[in-house]
Amino acid sequence: MKTMPNWLEKRAYLTPEKEAVITEDGYRMTFNQLRNDAKSVATYLQHSGIQSGDHVAVLAINSYKMIVLIHALQYIGVVNVLLNTRLSEKEWEFQLSDARAKLLIHDPVFKENIKDTVIETIDMTSIPLDANVAENLRTTINQEETSHIIYTSGTTGQPKGVQLSYDNHWSSATASALNLGLHNDDRWLLCLPMFHVGGLSIIYRSVIYGMPIHLFEKFDVEKVHQAIMEENITIISAVSVMAEQMMVRLGDGKYPDSFRCLLLGGGPAYRSLLEKCQGKNVPVFQTYGMTETASQFSTLDESHALQKLGSAGKPLFPGELIIANEGHEVPMGEVGEILVKGPNVTEGYWNRQKANDTSFENDWLHTGDLGYLDEDGFLYVLDRRKDLIISGGENIYPAEIENVLKQHPDIVDAGVVGRNDEKWGHVPVAFVTIKNEALNETDVIEHCHQYLAKYKVPKQIFFKENLPRNAAKKLMRHLLADEVPER
Amino acid sequence: MKTMPNWLEKRAYLTPEKEAVITEDGYRMTFNQLRNDAKSVATYLQHSGIQSGDHVAVLAINSYKMIVLIHALQYIGVVNVLLNTRLSEKEWEFQLSDARAKLLIHDPVFKENIKDTVIETIDMTSIPLDANVAENLRTTINQEETSHIIYTSGTTGQPKGVQLSYDNHWSSATASALNLGLHNDDRWLLCLPMFHVGGLSIIYRSVIYGMPIHLFEKFDVEKVHQAIMEENITIISAVSVMAEQMMVRLGDGKYPDSFRCLLLGGGPAYRSLLEKCQGKNVPVFQTYGMTETASQFSTLDESHALQKLGSAGKPLFPGELIIANEGHEVPMGEVGEILVKGPNVTEGYWNRQKANDTSFENDWLHTGDLGYLDEDGFLYVLDRRKDLIISGGENIYPAEIENVLKQHPDIVDAGVVGRNDEKWGHVPVAFVTIKNEALNETDVIEHCHQYLAKYKVPKQIFFKENLPRNAAKKLMRHLLADEVPER
Repeated sequence: MKTMPNWLEKRAYLTPEKEAVITEDGYRMTFNQLRNDAKSVATYLQHSGIQSGDHVAVLAINSYKMIVLIHALQYIGVVNVLLNTRLSEKEWEFQLSDARAKLLIHDPVFKENIKDTVIETIDMTSIPLDANVAENLRTTINQEETSHIIYTSGTTGQPKGVQLSYDNHWSSATASALNLGLHNDDRWLLCLPMFHVGGLSIIYRSVIYGMPIHLFEKFDVEKVHQAIMEENITIISAVSVMAEQMMVRLGDGKYPDSFRCLLLGGGPAYRSLLEKCQGKNVPVFQTYGMTETASQFSTLDESHALQKLGSAGKPLFPGELIIANEGHEVPMGEVGEILVKGPNVTEGYWNRQKANDTSFENDWLHTGDLGYLDEDGFLYVLDRRKDLIISGGENIYPAEIENVLKQHPDIVDAGVVGRNDEKWGHVPVAFVTIKNEALNETDVIEHCHQYLAKYKVPKQIFFKENLPRNAAKKLMRHLLADEVPER
Repeated sequence: MKTMPNWLEKRAYLTPEKEAVITEDGYRMTFNQLRNDAKSVATYLQHSGIQSGDHVAVLAINSYKMIVLIHALQYIGVVNVLLNTRLSEKEWEFQLSDARAKLLIHDPVFKENIKDTVIETIDMTSIPLDANVAENLRTTINQEETSHIIYTSGTTGQPKGVQLSYDNHWSSATASALNLGLHNDDRWLLCLPMFHVGGLSIIYRSVIYGMPIHLFEKFDVEKVHQAIMEENITIISAVSVMAEQMMVRLGDGKYPDSFRCLLLGGGPAYRSLLEKCQGKNVPVFQTYGMTETASQFSTLDESHALQKLGSAGKPLFPGELIIANEGHEVPMGEVGEILVKGPNVTEGYWNRQKANDTSFENDWLHTGDLGYLDEDGFLYVLDRRKDLIISGGENIYPAEIENVLKQHPDIVDAGVVGRNDEKWGHVPVAFVTIKNEALNETDVIEHCHQYLAKYKVPKQIFFKENLPRNAAKKLMRHLLADEVPER
């Protein structure tokens, strides 16, 4: 089995005095401090009976202590189950039981919500940072071992636990560096939840690169803006709704030259946002990835940002990607399901033989996403295969219609789903959140007619205060679908 | 088995139009061109009967065609035996036979030297670059497969073939990037022979990073100087004798700010050279590595260059290093043998069960080098264990005395070995190359007395026109030892 030094241990040896984490309160922790804290927590947990191979769940919002915890569990050799804080108690119960967690470490804010949990719980604030460090902590890791189980964000269906190995994280971190470059002065702003792989991956990039993290509890446009303007941030990971707010806040301003990358993930971005970023000289890198690929899998590099606007670029170095339909690779330009393979792709779902049998084929993971490669090999992600609307034999991608809707100055958010239709089988209908009460259904439909073929124009518009988005801000279209009245 | 896309194939897909190789004649080849040429050569060799798993030797001086060849062999899945061009015909014969090479591809300049070779030979200039590319070339690689057999440079004893896998090269390239950083405008000057791992590793870094190589047939101080001054070179790999000449040529001048790394390897550097580089603001990174570690294993980063002058830094991220004596790790500060482990360390010597049994212990490779770690964990490499002189119970490291000798303004090169001595067991004696005929033995001994404890001062000085250095410019002390007169 391939081994490596424990990443934080190695990093603290290489650059002990370099900054590791800067919190929004202005605390600045070095890698040495982070290591000492992580080993202290590891020791405490070991004394509490936690052993190598145990499954331990963490339910917490972003904090320095959460980073400490994640590293501490690595020192013991625990499989860490990261719970999404926005789920219901029932959903947590399901995941804790499904993952066979032995212990739940939680943020005190969730104390009331988990009081009926049948497994042992520890309030994370009760874990001291000054324990004497035990001698028997693991200073090497086996690359093939599972480090995390993260349940898929569940925009549809029963959640499945994605198993990620240390090698998955390592491959993701090195692949990203090969794509984005690696500068001695890099500082990555972390405002995505760490229970999602997009946030978690930044923790590992930090220790592997020797790079400070500017840590935020959650996305707050004002705080993020200030940090970028004043703290020499070079990279931020964000999803579209965050980037949209950032661009509004930036206004006619300009980010410092040292800011070199807005890594935009979490689903296809809409054209108007990308154009806005371009207009303000914000270096946006559109990326495609998922929990199953330990984050970033394909990224559009800056040099093609304009020329290939809307593309998620090409798969990062060690990964492979093909477009296939019914088991066969399709020619360039043709739409099909996106299949991925590589060292950052999960070995499979925890305890889901059936899902693994259907999702994997000769090491290729069927992502369930639809897309195509253009003539230069650039990836364009269209939509979830499940969300595809087939109308009179034509394929309609909800994301395309949503992008058009969001280009309307008075539309804040939009979601498109299919409705049964006697004539066409299915037709698209839209849910929108607006900021101008005067906007009516006819206005919206007219707007769509300007940009879309007739069969793609929503046949009905529903106005809603808010659209259902999950903790990663991903639109949960299946909840919208449930709201569509029967015809 | 873990697979990856063929590296050149992937690189040509990612950045087809980016420069891959710039020759000293000014030819500029893109990655797309390099791929097409490599696939053409691969096709030709396949038609000549070469198959996956065959061992094919290459005997060539640095050229674009040699880079093409190395990649071509990867497209077939061949194990590539790289021969050192400075060896004798007998030595080549030994290696060809020992490595069970099926074919020898050679530079035309060696035609006469290999005329008695019993295996099939091909003159590399006879291989066309415009063959129709076959469909069955391998566009993926198995990371664990052996890509090369490189015989250890043989400063002593029978050469052994070091097996390097794709994963060794990959790990070396990513580890180096984590250490040196990775900039979009990087350009690496390659003037080390590619049959040594220090040169070969640059070829792989080029395709993995997407970075142009400025290729030189051999080190020529004038050409290298001009390239650094005019071609936006950012990194060069060099050994001490090259760096010494470069500093003389630089004189009171200054390299462009874009030049960010002189990676100095091939044995411990002497203090006066490092100080010279510092004085001229040349960013020198002292490094420790060997064929068995696929090049760079430990490197002193720029931020510690001054503070830890003479150290080879800390082992790069995925590697581990300890100092041991008689099977036990020794405390910090104590001298012992350097042991290394990690994904860039060879799996073992080709067909040398005995050497493998003695060199490896629980995946730790015994390097045969002596060194110590200081209180901050920085590595200082002293010398080859074999070259250690034990005099009256005291350890004497020839490199230390050589460094002192080379600090004398009239001494160009120096080598120190032990001589039998009735009283002390062994005493040090020195061979020197001088540039001032007036320098005599007493002068040299007096110079040493200023810097060295008495027992370390050479008891006899031999003047020589040239000292024996191998193709990697490493001093072959065993040849000097043979010249020491019996007493």
